[in-house]
Amino acid sequence: MADTSPHRVVIVGGGFGGLFAAKFLRRAPVEVTLIDRTNHHAFQPLLYQLATGILSEGAVAPPLREVLRKHPNVRVELANVTAFDLEARTVAATRVLGPGLSVPYDSLIVAAGATGSYFGHDEFARFAPGMKTVDDALELRARIFGAFEMAEIEEDPEAQRTWLTFAVIGAGPTGVEMAGQIAELSRRALKGNFRRIDPASAQVLLFDGGDEPLATFGDKLCAKATREIERTGVQLRMHSRVTDVKPDAIVVQGPDGEERIACHTKVWSAGVQASPLGAMLAEATSAGTDRAGHVEVLPDCTLPGHPEVFVVGDMMALNGLPGVAEVAMQSGIHAARTIKRRIDGDTATKAFVYRDLGSMATISRFRAIVSFKGIKVGGFLGWLMWAFVHLTFLTGFKNRWIALFKWLTAFVGKSRDERTITMQQVSARIIANQVGVKPGDEDLTRFAQG
Amino acid sequence: MADTSPHRVVIVGGGFGGLFAAKFLRRAPVEVTLIDRTNHHAFQPLLYQLATGILSEGAVAPPLREVLRKHPNVRVELANVTAFDLEARTVAATRVLGPGLSVPYDSLIVAAGATGSYFGHDEFARFAPGMKTVDDALELRARIFGAFEMAEIEEDPEAQRTWLTFAVIGAGPTGVEMAGQIAELSRRALKGNFRRIDPASAQVLLFDGGDEPLATFGDKLCAKATREIERTGVQLRMHSRVTDVKPDAIVVQGPDGEERIACHTKVWSAGVQASPLGAMLAEATSAGTDRAGHVEVLPDCTLPGHPEVFVVGDMMALNGLPGVAEVAMQSGIHAARTIKRRIDGDTATKAFVYRDLGSMATISRFRAIVSFKGIKVGGFLGWLMWAFVHLTFLTGFKNRWIALFKWLTAFVGKSRDERTITMQQVSARIIANQVGVKPGDEDLTRFAQG
Repeated sequence: MADTSPHRVVIVGGGFGGLFAAKFLRRAPVEVTLIDRTNHHAFQPLLYQLATGILSEGAVAPPLREVLRKHPNVRVELANVTAFDLEARTVAATRVLGPGLSVPYDSLIVAAGATGSYFGHDEFARFAPGMKTVDDALELRARIFGAFEMAEIEEDPEAQRTWLTFAVIGAGPTGVEMAGQIAELSRRALKGNFRRIDPASAQVLLFDGGDEPLATFGDKLCAKATREIERTGVQLRMHSRVTDVKPDAIVVQGPDGEERIACHTKVWSAGVQASPLGAMLAEATSAGTDRAGHVEVLPDCTLPGHPEVFVVGDMMALNGLPGVAEVAMQSGIHAARTIKRRIDGDTATKAFVYRDLGSMATISRFRAIVSFKGIKVGGFLGWLMWAFVHLTFLTGFKNRWIALFKWLTAFVGKSRDERTITMQQVSARIIANQVGVKPGDEDLTRFAQG
Repeated sequence: MADTSPHRVVIVGGGFGGLFAAKFLRRAPVEVTLIDRTNHHAFQPLLYQLATGILSEGAVAPPLREVLRKHPNVRVELANVTAFDLEARTVAATRVLGPGLSVPYDSLIVAAGATGSYFGHDEFARFAPGMKTVDDALELRARIFGAFEMAEIEEDPEAQRTWLTFAVIGAGPTGVEMAGQIAELSRRALKGNFRRIDPASAQVLLFDGGDEPLATFGDKLCAKATREIERTGVQLRMHSRVTDVKPDAIVVQGPDGEERIACHTKVWSAGVQASPLGAMLAEATSAGTDRAGHVEVLPDCTLPGHPEVFVVGDMMALNGLPGVAEVAMQSGIHAARTIKRRIDGDTATKAFVYRDLGSMATISRFRAIVSFKGIKVGGFLGWLMWAFVHLTFLTGFKNRWIALFKWLTAFVGKSRDERTITMQQVSARIIANQVGVKPGDEDLTRFAQG
């Protein structure tokens, strides 16, 4: 480490894990390269608010370059990582245009996150997108608000009902939040907006194969959550597995057998799988992966035989830690701190110790459940805690005030500000993917341009 | 008019003309159908702030249904008008899906606005988009912020300069506002964001064939504006006509002869032409059109021989009135008031009298010029007047506060909140249209998905 050139750290991914690692290294004598495919840090816990028209994309996805403006030792590369050479210690990436990139490192932090998992049915994705990126959320926003538009156009009551039925698959925090917000916007925010349909007649169905929604929160909170979810108008369908997804329907295997439910708009929040970069790293080393592709790292978040390579956040399998923002932040910081310690000459191996700051999920406006060190809180008090924590972690002073203002006006008032459906979405996406015609179908393109 | 069924008014277009007509008719005994291709009312005077990352799409484009929520006599149809039958008094429109629409009317207000004009060179549009719709502004946002990203990637100084050269064609209010904001974001907002390039080295060129920018404001203000534009860092190129537009360059015929200027990012604000619906109406009647396709209406904004058909706003040619929001609002209201008067039994023809409330254009933060009844104001006082008027006319209480807050933080502070480039834009748009490769080019699609 007594080299003359500074220690080079490459971080793959600008989510919670990667961003907090980069920030931690601000005053360390290192040169950091942060590689991400997008120009923004997506604040995933609030993507559902982008998808349902409460916040704008800028509010939930600040530009990485701006967030790291005062970190002169961090260089952001807009590129897509394709390979690692652990022997030569380089990361290969493609760029939007021009020649690819090969970035050498002394230490590597891989924090490329996770995507939705369709359990071997990737063909479901087109009709039931997940919600892991800003693109996903904007796509869902156009589909959700577009569905009400389509229902208003339809004359046939059955066709209307198909547009006014929303299926959310998976009753974890994201699924519960999405279902709750779709129900609220149909019952409150869209009131008075339509003349033929009553948006409040929309059915919002939340499917899960398990016994209870938000199962990780424990029985008492689950029971409370169940009551509150149902009060928002969401129909909970537990013990129900979705076995097929069609443009205009889903097939559900429930307690009473198989059922086909007509609906155009589906949201998939049933499973996650680690970024495929995880499998790539595992193959190159003796690390294993679990069924969802998480990399089984050593207790200090490194790869076996490669103490200079850290895998953190949603990509790592370690002590059964959940794929939540808090784990990603803390493990990212752990990796960064370890790198700094080593540069300072302290090469002792220190295991990553997760400080559980509790978990929380919103159910509807002013309703959330919070579990923290054995304390279980629900209702309005839970929501206040949720709002406080999310405002604290939202990046940037301005975004906090805007979010607070938008929450107050959206939840005390009724409207949703961010409901824009672009013509490009009309032609390329909403309809094509919701009714199953070819994207770029001539009729749709003509509509958008004509 | 002593019919039992209510008088049916059809309004084509939800811009300033159409929306203000619909609002005016709130308490009139009429049934209104407002037809628009999009789900929103685009506040065109602020689209440049959407394109340069200051405001979100929701702030400049509130949903039409929400704006008209408390107008139960207005039905909004998301459809694309394709034909008029002035004899049968019906409007034909296509919808996103399903059978088309044929809407009968007793009175018709056509307020379909204008689009950019390329003076016979429509092939320029792909490389130099205009800024008339939310889609246009989002496209430009991705191109502008994407250009800095591409410059950061390039190693070759000349290629970097091509990405860091921005050409705005047409020095009317929109062109001046765009050029000024691109200059400000390169000099202030992006400071510290990049490591290889200095965004402040960006060149922003503003071309116009005339003698002065903002020519309609008169000599004294023009001189002031010229000084202030140049102070922002924009290079004014007057007496310069753009004769060709390529993916990576423009060709300019200027006072010193022909010049080829290498640049990827172009904005077209040089000319407008009325919606093609105007020519359709003129053909069906004895009305003429001017060179830009504006319909020559009678003094009361109606078509010759069709007192029940009004053409208002940017589509009409009347006494040389300019294509500005104020004319659109007032002529829309004039049409609506005429319809109401006739229902009340007053069939006298009343000419449309435009009350000139002045015109204004922002040049940079805290700098605007205002011309009002012979009073000419520039500088900070002009900007305060500009801000006051725009906040007053922005639709919705919330959007006003958000806009004020964003202006304060963007202009006193430095950052731009709304800089999201989606992956879809990366693959389909920014690059494809800025460097001239095929949209959907395989390499780009792979980058976005991989």
